[in-house]
Amino acid sequence: MKILVTGFDPFGGESVNPAYEAVKRLDDNIAGAEIVKVEIPTVFGKSINKLDEAIEKENPDIVICVGQAGGRFDITVERVAINISDASIEDNEGNMPIDEPIFEDGESAYFSQLPIKAMVQKIREGGIPASVSNTAGTYVCNHIMYGLHYLIDKKYQNIKGGFIHVPFLPEQVIDKRATPSMNLNDIVKALTLAIEAVVENKEDIKMPEGKTH
Amino acid sequence: MKILVTGFDPFGGESVNPAYEAVKRLDDNIAGAEIVKVEIPTVFGKSINKLDEAIEKENPDIVICVGQAGGRFDITVERVAINISDASIEDNEGNMPIDEPIFEDGESAYFSQLPIKAMVQKIREGGIPASVSNTAGTYVCNHIMYGLHYLIDKKYQNIKGGFIHVPFLPEQVIDKRATPSMNLNDIVKALTLAIEAVVENKEDIKMPEGKTH
Amino acid sequence: MKILVTGFDPFGGESVNPAYEAVKRLDDNIAGAEIVKVEIPTVFGKSINKLDEAIEKENPDIVICVGQAGGRFDITVERVAINISDASIEDNEGNMPIDEPIFEDGESAYFSQLPIKAMVQKIREGGIPASVSNTAGTYVCNHIMYGLHYLIDKKYQNIKGGFIHVPFLPEQVIDKRATPSMNLNDIVKALTLAIEAVVENKEDIKMPEGKTH
Amino acid sequence: MKILVTGFDPFGGESVNPAYEAVKRLDDNIAGAEIVKVEIPTVFGKSINKLDEAIEKENPDIVICVGQAGGRFDITVERVAINISDASIEDNEGNMPIDEPIFEDGESAYFSQLPIKAMVQKIREGGIPASVSNTAGTYVCNHIMYGLHYLIDKKYQNIKGGFIHVPFLPEQVIDKRATPSMNLNDIVKALTLAIEAVVENKEDIKMPEGKTH
Repeated sequence: MKILVTGFDPFGGESVNPAYEAVKRLDDNIAGAEIVKVEIPTVFGKSINKLDEAIEKENPDIVICVGQAGGRFDITVERVAINISDASIEDNEGNMPIDEPIFEDGESAYFSQLPIKAMVQKIREGGIPASVSNTAGTYVCNHIMYGLHYLIDKKYQNIKGGFIHVPFLPEQVIDKRATPSMNLNDIVKALTLAIEAVVENKEDIKMPEGKTH
Repeated sequence: MKILVTGFDPFGGESVNPAYEAVKRLDDNIAGAEIVKVEIPTVFGKSINKLDEAIEKENPDIVICVGQAGGRFDITVERVAINISDASIEDNEGNMPIDEPIFEDGESAYFSQLPIKAMVQKIREGGIPASVSNTAGTYVCNHIMYGLHYLIDKKYQNIKGGFIHVPFLPEQVIDKRATPSMNLNDIVKALTLAIEAVVENKEDIKMPEGKTH
Repeated sequence: MKILVTGFDPFGGESVNPAYEAVKRLDDNIAGAEIVKVEIPTVFGKSINKLDEAIEKENPDIVICVGQAGGRFDITVERVAINISDASIEDNEGNMPIDEPIFEDGESAYFSQLPIKAMVQKIREGGIPASVSNTAGTYVCNHIMYGLHYLIDKKYQNIKGGFIHVPFLPEQVIDKRATPSMNLNDIVKALTLAIEAVVENKEDIKMPEGKTH
Repeated sequence: MKILVTGFDPFGGESVNPAYEAVKRLDDNIAGAEIVKVEIPTVFGKSINKLDEAIEKENPDIVICVGQAGGRFDITVERVAINISDASIEDNEGNMPIDEPIFEDGESAYFSQLPIKAMVQKIREGGIPASVSNTAGTYVCNHIMYGLHYLIDKKYQNIKGGFIHVPFLPEQVIDKRATPSMNLNDIVKALTLAIEAVVENKEDIKMPEGKTH
């Protein structure tokens, strides 16, 4: 089994992105699966093209994209991506789309085909807080997650895909008041556990992980 | 123009639901539109049936459902509903669906057709904090919003619909530490302003209101 | 009985201060006590001089100072003021003391002589969230609370004093993300209830209201 | 130079206390100072007796007590301890004092004599978020910090003392929603840096670190 894992480059004034920092530290083999790592630019459109090229080249069985969710307390496995881009800040090439569909001929949303609750449970068993998230936002993270599933839907129907959001690193919150963070080693461990859960679980487990809002 | 506004009954151990408390205090006429108010049970399935009956009976031009989002700081106008129910607590009749689609033949998600950003802007101009939300959760609020749009899609194609989440009332947070709340009069005012924006704006305005995650 | 209630003017870039906005709306008679209201400048030193003049002129039995605590969720009755000024922003006349004692010959701290828990309980019974706070910060709010008790200790030993912090108003948080607020009417009601509790309770009540940190 | 560092045992339903977990992992020599580590029971009264015995036995130059502040985002160096115990939960022997002075003949408050801002700055330079706190609460943490300074005032006048609060560990927040945590290695590193700052700085540095409330 081959798993492609992507992480974004820094954006929004940060000098580091915990997503790719963690991704590049992953072992090359996790639970018997070969891990291929790619850095993706935080740019609307171009990020999806880069992902498409990487899938074409690597022919993976699974694709997991990883992004920074500054302000979140825990590792969040995303459930769904929606067909809209609505930026509150410019991306790394100055784009700032407002309420634009990502693909006119795509579904209104795509649900992850990964075992998201098994991933959350496995991370928690490893002593790291995690939960299912029902929104990946409307910026480049949602964009790449939607793009990934659009590509799967249209071109790569044997692939399964998903997205994981990770918190700020401690060093990123020194000048931010009352903002949670997570150690890089813990993020690497959590991603590793999530990948193990993906390898181990063909079907997702049933456990309540919903949110009232 | 006739606008049907619904609010849920109390759930999750609360003795009051700010949603219907506010809805029932709305004027019967707002910006020239007739306002019809209906209380909806916080019950999977039954809530959608009740809504369907009300639409059938009232034949409104617009339907706005209102629900409680305990823990949120401001009035949130929902952008999208997703085709899944995943309860973390039982509804008012003991149902607790885990990862079940709401309608097998529905879209993966429905976007609100209301001018959500104009609604947010109008509420803010009235001095009340508001924002666009990209998740209505996976409980009965998302369920009714999804159900509303499913009904619109399948049966009532001339109707436009949307969903607004409101915070706890001050009296609800007395025993909850560090939990935001909003005065009932402010919620009523915010809903009134949102309805005015719906009447005044056929198309939504363009302003950045997205979230990075 | 005569009660002097003070509120600060706006500071820190805000155009309004909910403290004096609420104070000036208080009834002139609460629970039989005459209420005298004075606005105090958000300025180190000068605020205490202004307070001293007002006490001299009005000869009150009780003095309650009120200030804004932007970011707090509820009405907080302060337990203690400490003998230090440590400003993170300039006051309204450009002063920014760092780690300076307020009065060299004062106690290290003064505890409020008001029935702080009875005040909290009374506010809660009125449906408004409230709690005891163990820090008034190190800015002008702590400064005036400390100054008040220093004046009581040195000059006005028959007076009892205390301090109440109030949240932002809704209109102040429109541009601030995830920041709690409270309706002005609720703040006025809470202050009124707190004053009633002061009139009604010579001794404080015993109830657990401490914090582990 | 000899530095006595204490950490509390678990309380409040937790199975672990990050304070002593971190303290016991400290090097035996930091910046040339000998480090002596003692576990202290989370018990009113008894904790101060245990501390007194340890000081008597070890004759340290510096005493730093460390406690858990569940819910705080960063390492907080405490500025002041106040002469009151007000418990919201029972201690580990069932005591729950309400509004009782710690020592009748003590000051109303004691300020730490350690270079608290230099400690904060040093921790931040190490990439870990930290700040000065102006309240150690009213539970056993404030109690031991107050007791330490009372002992210094009455018996051990050549000793300097202080208190550091540390966040929950990641494993402690798995079942707590939206609660920050910090990796144990980061806590150990932060305490080490704080101790280095204590050794290096006879006088505290001047930098704004105050809070408006």
